[in-house]
Amino acid sequence: MSHFDIFIGEVTGTALLILLGGGVVAGVVLKRSKAHNAGWVAISLGWGFAVMVGAYLSSGVSGAHLNPAVTLGLAIEGGTKWSDVPLYIGSQMLGAMIGALLVWVVYMGQFKAHLTDPEILAAQPEKEGLVDQKAAPAAGPVLGVFSTGPEVRNALQNALTEIVATFVLVISILTQGLNNEGDGLGPLGVLITAFLVVGIGLSLGGPTGYAINPARDLGPRIVHALLPLPNKGGSDWGYAWIPVVAPLIGGALAGGYYNWVFA
Amino acid sequence: MSHFDIFIGEVTGTALLILLGGGVVAGVVLKRSKAHNAGWVAISLGWGFAVMVGAYLSSGVSGAHLNPAVTLGLAIEGGTKWSDVPLYIGSQMLGAMIGALLVWVVYMGQFKAHLTDPEILAAQPEKEGLVDQKAAPAAGPVLGVFSTGPEVRNALQNALTEIVATFVLVISILTQGLNNEGDGLGPLGVLITAFLVVGIGLSLGGPTGYAINPARDLGPRIVHALLPLPNKGGSDWGYAWIPVVAPLIGGALAGGYYNWVFA
Amino acid sequence: MSHFDIFIGEVTGTALLILLGGGVVAGVVLKRSKAHNAGWVAISLGWGFAVMVGAYLSSGVSGAHLNPAVTLGLAIEGGTKWSDVPLYIGSQMLGAMIGALLVWVVYMGQFKAHLTDPEILAAQPEKEGLVDQKAAPAAGPVLGVFSTGPEVRNALQNALTEIVATFVLVISILTQGLNNEGDGLGPLGVLITAFLVVGIGLSLGGPTGYAINPARDLGPRIVHALLPLPNKGGSDWGYAWIPVVAPLIGGALAGGYYNWVFA
Amino acid sequence: MSHFDIFIGEVTGTALLILLGGGVVAGVVLKRSKAHNAGWVAISLGWGFAVMVGAYLSSGVSGAHLNPAVTLGLAIEGGTKWSDVPLYIGSQMLGAMIGALLVWVVYMGQFKAHLTDPEILAAQPEKEGLVDQKAAPAAGPVLGVFSTGPEVRNALQNALTEIVATFVLVISILTQGLNNEGDGLGPLGVLITAFLVVGIGLSLGGPTGYAINPARDLGPRIVHALLPLPNKGGSDWGYAWIPVVAPLIGGALAGGYYNWVFA
Repeated sequence: MSHFDIFIGEVTGTALLILLGGGVVAGVVLKRSKAHNAGWVAISLGWGFAVMVGAYLSSGVSGAHLNPAVTLGLAIEGGTKWSDVPLYIGSQMLGAMIGALLVWVVYMGQFKAHLTDPEILAAQPEKEGLVDQKAAPAAGPVLGVFSTGPEVRNALQNALTEIVATFVLVISILTQGLNNEGDGLGPLGVLITAFLVVGIGLSLGGPTGYAINPARDLGPRIVHALLPLPNKGGSDWGYAWIPVVAPLIGGALAGGYYNWVFA
Repeated sequence: MSHFDIFIGEVTGTALLILLGGGVVAGVVLKRSKAHNAGWVAISLGWGFAVMVGAYLSSGVSGAHLNPAVTLGLAIEGGTKWSDVPLYIGSQMLGAMIGALLVWVVYMGQFKAHLTDPEILAAQPEKEGLVDQKAAPAAGPVLGVFSTGPEVRNALQNALTEIVATFVLVISILTQGLNNEGDGLGPLGVLITAFLVVGIGLSLGGPTGYAINPARDLGPRIVHALLPLPNKGGSDWGYAWIPVVAPLIGGALAGGYYNWVFA
Repeated sequence: MSHFDIFIGEVTGTALLILLGGGVVAGVVLKRSKAHNAGWVAISLGWGFAVMVGAYLSSGVSGAHLNPAVTLGLAIEGGTKWSDVPLYIGSQMLGAMIGALLVWVVYMGQFKAHLTDPEILAAQPEKEGLVDQKAAPAAGPVLGVFSTGPEVRNALQNALTEIVATFVLVISILTQGLNNEGDGLGPLGVLITAFLVVGIGLSLGGPTGYAINPARDLGPRIVHALLPLPNKGGSDWGYAWIPVVAPLIGGALAGGYYNWVFA
Repeated sequence: MSHFDIFIGEVTGTALLILLGGGVVAGVVLKRSKAHNAGWVAISLGWGFAVMVGAYLSSGVSGAHLNPAVTLGLAIEGGTKWSDVPLYIGSQMLGAMIGALLVWVVYMGQFKAHLTDPEILAAQPEKEGLVDQKAAPAAGPVLGVFSTGPEVRNALQNALTEIVATFVLVISILTQGLNNEGDGLGPLGVLITAFLVVGIGLSLGGPTGYAINPARDLGPRIVHALLPLPNKGGSDWGYAWIPVVAPLIGGALAGGYYNWVFA
């Protein structure tokens, strides 16, 4: 696997992941979308198939990490060289930012309709001085298209939730080698990974919105901070460290558990 | 692959695609259907399995293009001969029109109930002089069974949305060769394509209804224009060029990107 | 394949099909079920996985027909001996009746709660002298657990809908041979068949409830007529011929089309 | 397969099963979760993919029983040694308790919000002296995160429902050998098992919540009894024997039926 393969596979795959993942949130939460209010099943399915699309394209090119926590777990397990880790993570971050920009391109009319809707803007925030998704009727859902946020803001619980959910993701990916004969995920592994992510969303996504991927959260949050959207509100940087640090811990724990038990 | 194989595979496959794809919209939007108001998840799943059924039948016969944008992408990539392109596209158009007619056959009682419902007809259109899906309470959903239409009418955004969504479709189909050993999609490739289309619908379908296929939109629109349905309204020809031109651009970009990066 | 294999495979497989298929309708329409009002997506998914379970068990035993229309299509195509057809159909009818009885066993408390609910019983039927699902607030949904019924009662449309939907089912099953190398459906063919049935339900089930299988409709209707349920209403025998005759026509047309085009 | 393999595979796999299975119920029923009120389709999909994740990890390690009823069925069928049965069941119970604890960790803020919500607590129980899910507005849903309970409390029906549903589960798992060539489920068998469980949930879960697994119900019920949650109510021990005994009967019947008919 050449450095160019890693770069192009991870950039393209992560861009597709975020385009489709951010897209389903935009479709469900923003006004004037045909998918408006389609619910949590739609969001969970959408993110699962987003991973499928990104992994399907990149599986034979870069190994379809698309996630620094997966890269870290594979480095600990031994399947990825430590010297390739910075290239993987940098490519994932770049791809995530491109994907978030594309979400804005695809849904630009919906962003505008939502952020300039007089009814939404007139609704009073529930709390002052705090940008969270409940506090900001217009800005909250828009930030949610880019990045995750907790329903109950408690750093310990939020971090534990992300650690557990990422552990489930990475341990499942690592043990795919126990099932498949060949190398790489293969199309069946890609399909199972899709439903794995659907399952994590349905079962463990309720409290924090399941970042389970530092690039998936931080890359689009940077794009949110930079995009000149009217009334967009803050980017909730106070929460931003949790969906970066906790998934890395979860991925590392999965790599260690795998080495301890299954290797 | 003989010319007859291309013809019969693409006609039959595209007819099944439109029968099931238009069918799920009819089932969800028309009155007196058991699927009435089943929501966007139903529509996205329905279109995905519509592609699955059409591709499953035609994969071993004509290669399961079912879409001029796919044919164009494959011609650029080199998997399809340019001299076969007109036959593919013509067969897809014919199949799409047959499929749209079959939707009308299957749902004829629902079309009649919807288009002659006094309550629906009495509802005032939101705007005069414009046939879009919001403006025409009876005609809008009926046109939506046949063809796509935007939620926010903005030619630039609408075209960009269709270009991006079609790019995702075609680049994913082109890179299947990176995963599969044999030729043709195979049953697993067909299954993954189904969920790919479900994902595109959930994630990128909100703004325009995801034509991502010129034949899927234009063929049924012609049938809508010809069918003698009462109170059916116009066929929104002002929008019709976008779901034809934009998917072709998206498919061509995917073919070019594939050749540049993966070939 | 011995006669005993055909018998036990078709009886067990069809019983599982109807147990799970009737079960999901019971779960969604009857009172005091956790799945109450789960909607058309639930019903379509439930019937799809019902076919999957029945076919998975019987695929290696009897070939997983589970449906006289499939048996007829396969006999026309040549994959099934005409002399085995009566045994297949008889076994399917017996299995369907056993499955319908098991639905009653599993949901007996829900049937009782629904059929003796004062509020439901007090609701006036919309029309007198006609037992259809709209006319009988308590009896209609209960009959719907067993057998199909139309939303718009029009013999021509209802028959055409069932013919088209069964044609889609059987032509897809027949063309699986174009994709698979081995004989039998195999687990991947079973999975695709599941989503095929989900798709038919979502897209073509709205007008009549998609019997697409004479045994699936007639066997449980006989059980409905025999079960001593209070207030159960009639079994709508006036409609019963359509979901028997139309699927057989659809299956025969699929067999003929397959022989004409693909064989 | 070493004793350590059985132990670590069943503990880890069952813990993942309960973490994701209990997690989806918590996400749907508890307040302040993004999945709140996502409905029965979400719960059925969530449990199905929970089985997929647990089975995917443990399939190559311990054979992915994760369920004493499956272990019993396989012991009767001959695929599992009777002397290994206690180790399997003990490991499953331990894993189920670990999984239930993890659900509490992931959703601790939601449990607290739900159990201390003044509006929920003020709602009067429908019946006094009986802890069932309808009688206790705050406690009922919380117990439902851990263990199953009936909608209509009738020991005979409840037991029959669990027997039939478990029979469907175990007979389907046993007959996988009729489809697969290799040993073990393999990734495709795991995927089909996921949709099998989705189907059982949709079709047979309405009356009792489909325990279909003694460890899945009893382990988390013990954790519910031990956890110091405020206002949690009782653990409904009067019902607890049914989801233990009935699934074992169903699994044993499936093993016997398999030996009688298919072996």
